[in-house]
Amino acid sequence: MIVLGIDPGLARCGWAVIEQNARKDNKIIDFGCIETKATTELPQRLTALYSTLEEIINKYKPHVVSLEKQYLFMNNKSVLATSQARGVIVLVAARNNLPIREYNPKLVKMSVTGYGAADKQQIQRMVKILLKLKEIPTPDDIADAMAVGLCHLNSASLNLKL
Amino acid sequence: MIVLGIDPGLARCGWAVIEQNARKDNKIIDFGCIETKATTELPQRLTALYSTLEEIINKYKPHVVSLEKQYLFMNNKSVLATSQARGVIVLVAARNNLPIREYNPKLVKMSVTGYGAADKQQIQRMVKILLKLKEIPTPDDIADAMAVGLCHLNSASLNLKL
Repeated sequence: MIVLGIDPGLARCGWAVIEQNARKDNKIIDFGCIETKATTELPQRLTALYSTLEEIINKYKPHVVSLEKQYLFMNNKSVLATSQARGVIVLVAARNNLPIREYNPKLVKMSVTGYGAADKQQIQRMVKILLKLKEIPTPDDIADAMAVGLCHLNSASLNLKL
Repeated sequence: MIVLGIDPGLARCGWAVIEQNARKDNKIIDFGCIETKATTELPQRLTALYSTLEEIINKYKPHVVSLEKQYLFMNNKSVLATSQARGVIVLVAARNNLPIREYNPKLVKMSVTGYGAADKQQIQRMVKILLKLKEIPTPDDIADAMAVGLCHLNSASLNLKL
């Protein structure tokens, strides 16, 4: 099972490809952050996001895309930009016949730290440990993408525990 | 000059194709409302929106897409859904090499009614008159799409007046 975890954003969109083998070991395959500049026009930014994600999908052939659910209380200046990017992300997955799973942010935190209100640093440390990384990836968007990818891979066993 | 005016939305996305001839007469070519059900999953709704708009673009070959600018004070329960739909709308235009023009909502009202704080009914009545329609189109999203399309067509002369 290969999952593509994505942390949606227009300026920075984190992504992580994680593979789980039959023994439920998780292995990071590749990761990165798609960045588009605020000085670039919105149509070109969204097109770049779509094309880059499609390349990643074609290269790694994930079975599923995992995203955090979006809530209006996540409101901030960038909510409109993030939502437009999110629409494009959901679209590129759907047009490539990939199922999309959405997880509550609390469940994502729970699944990597065991604590639903864990802070960013705690998540980053756990992602580093769980995926045997040499260091915490930067920018932060990548660790968030890894966390939501891991959340999907762990969700079956988590569902049993909750 | 053919403009495709769009009023972005996930449940209902209004659209209008308007042609302006050399004498600056505006003529409605076609219009409609793309509706997707709340019971349908988001990926399928966004895919339907993308495909239907692409069909409209291929059929009428507009030169430009006209949209209202989106502001955070337009905040409401549907802002996340609308923004995701908006991302897909901007994308389908960009991937079909269509330029996108965005207009301030006040300018849209100004351009069809002469008054930047006009109400919905006033806009609907003026759109009906300006495009010589037999009746006000329903749902409301269509008149909004017509208004933003007209705004683009009128914007050159408006810019002179303002």
